[in-house]
Amino acid sequence: MAVVVPFESPRPAGLNRLVDLVAADMERVNATILARTGSEVTMIPEVANHLIASGGKRLRPMLTLAMAKLAGYSGDGHIKLAAAVEFMHTATLLHDDVVDESDMRRGKLAARMVWGNEASVLVGDFLLGQAFKMMVEVGNLHALDILSSAAAVIAEGEVMQLGTANNTATNEDEYLAVIRAKTAELFAAACEVGPALANKEKAEQAACRSFGMNLGIAFQLVDDALDYGGKSAKLGKNVGDDFREGKITLPVVLSFRRGTESERAFWNRTLVEGKVEDGDLDAAMAMMAKHHAIEDTLGRARHYGAIAKDALALAPDSPIKQALEEAVDFSIARAH
Amino acid sequence: MAVVVPFESPRPAGLNRLVDLVAADMERVNATILARTGSEVTMIPEVANHLIASGGKRLRPMLTLAMAKLAGYSGDGHIKLAAAVEFMHTATLLHDDVVDESDMRRGKLAARMVWGNEASVLVGDFLLGQAFKMMVEVGNLHALDILSSAAAVIAEGEVMQLGTANNTATNEDEYLAVIRAKTAELFAAACEVGPALANKEKAEQAACRSFGMNLGIAFQLVDDALDYGGKSAKLGKNVGDDFREGKITLPVVLSFRRGTESERAFWNRTLVEGKVEDGDLDAAMAMMAKHHAIEDTLGRARHYGAIAKDALALAPDSPIKQALEEAVDFSIARAH
Repeated sequence: MAVVVPFESPRPAGLNRLVDLVAADMERVNATILARTGSEVTMIPEVANHLIASGGKRLRPMLTLAMAKLAGYSGDGHIKLAAAVEFMHTATLLHDDVVDESDMRRGKLAARMVWGNEASVLVGDFLLGQAFKMMVEVGNLHALDILSSAAAVIAEGEVMQLGTANNTATNEDEYLAVIRAKTAELFAAACEVGPALANKEKAEQAACRSFGMNLGIAFQLVDDALDYGGKSAKLGKNVGDDFREGKITLPVVLSFRRGTESERAFWNRTLVEGKVEDGDLDAAMAMMAKHHAIEDTLGRARHYGAIAKDALALAPDSPIKQALEEAVDFSIARAH
Repeated sequence: MAVVVPFESPRPAGLNRLVDLVAADMERVNATILARTGSEVTMIPEVANHLIASGGKRLRPMLTLAMAKLAGYSGDGHIKLAAAVEFMHTATLLHDDVVDESDMRRGKLAARMVWGNEASVLVGDFLLGQAFKMMVEVGNLHALDILSSAAAVIAEGEVMQLGTANNTATNEDEYLAVIRAKTAELFAAACEVGPALANKEKAEQAACRSFGMNLGIAFQLVDDALDYGGKSAKLGKNVGDDFREGKITLPVVLSFRRGTESERAFWNRTLVEGKVEDGDLDAAMAMMAKHHAIEDTLGRARHYGAIAKDALALAPDSPIKQALEEAVDFSIARAH
């Protein structure tokens, strides 16, 4: 279906510019991904490609490619590092679905529903192993340090999330610590390895890392808002998934804290005790509207988006810089 | 309880010599392990130490230390690499217990029974991430290559095992391919990084790798024999675990292939259909005795043990070489 955008629209240009600018490199990344999921153990490419081929935006590897370009890197290492970043992300998704007992992922049955939890855990491990192999092949110790540290932080964030799951006492800072670790850290690492490969100065690497970190936080905040409807339907994931899984995201944190006694009893019944009845999702969304929880979650996202853009401010103007700024706008505009 | 060994016994000296020779280094490895399981997310040290502190022999990190010594390595890198090897092993155990739905590990409740499958998957990921961080800190690209390749092969072997699980048609070669990948590869990598750190010649690295690979195969074969009683009780694991989980190990492969029609029906009922009745384990062990399946499994183990020892034959005689040879004898003698 075509989407008609009136030409005077203030809508951001979306991801088009970024997609176009890294298209040639991305083709090589895709070929690498395909080659590196190959195995004589046929279940490995089956499970891996079920998820990898199912239409993720590949935003994270695009960021690695874009940052390498921004840094003027002229080698080949960014291709394998971008593929490694996507493998790390895919491994996390496979393990997440097992941990969350999710049925669906990107609008398809989750891999664990087709091949079982066993295969999801082990193919995730395989992809992590392949990711590290590719990083080692690139041979840049600084990039290795960035990505291996990220792997540990991401796992730490996932464990941390177990502690906040179904816990309505979670506050905004605790929520933020979780999404920094489990989502934003990979965005940050994906961005930082570009200038690291190009041996750029520390300040420049820190700027790229900050861009990724804040974009990642904004991205996750918008994701969490979209799970309660945002202002439009969300592709590939169903409204209410987080609610049914008892996930404590910022819209819930804000609604719980701003709610009445009886509203807090509602959140405890549905998210802590897991007793969800017909109409509860609508009731939850009504409370969020009453307390401006979605609105304020998106406001927080805009805050981090602005930090991301300012992080790149010292870089000279260029098409790739413009494309990265537009990627921030796109990540936030998904909610409208 | 003290074990009384008559002094004229032909029993191998066991692991004592190896343990003594690497004791000083091992203390540093243990301190590193403790420091690296630390996290503000309290569940991480809890889960990690539940398993790490529960009395594994730490044979794999001992091999890394011993091979570094054999190679005359004088740096510090072997400490972190040995800790990384133990973390990779522990991560595999955590994930294995989830995949196998095991209740017990090393004579204690499996971590997943105490903290849940979620924590076992995610703390495993955390340990893998920490393992890679430590390797990167050592900064030797060759060692990184060896260990990251091993991580991918191990995961591949685990997925391969999903295909042989509950499949009585598995033959000895297929079984061997699985244990090479899932067990012996880490032994091989643990041994190979020692001479790699010391920049030894290719032939010497290959010899150490071959020692580890064949010791690992022998070790797993004996483990699989012990699960059906071997000739004595096995520490920390219960006789019959593999049987109850429907695992296809060499004792089963041999018994199935050498069995009568009605015996094969027995194996298919118990291992494929999972219908296990009282007395079935005894019946299984009786069939194994009839077909010399345990005896021949241990014979295969001695075969690989001999290859392991010959792999080290060109190394000049030294206490550490003797200790490594005794480790092979020990691994096999566990069955007697």
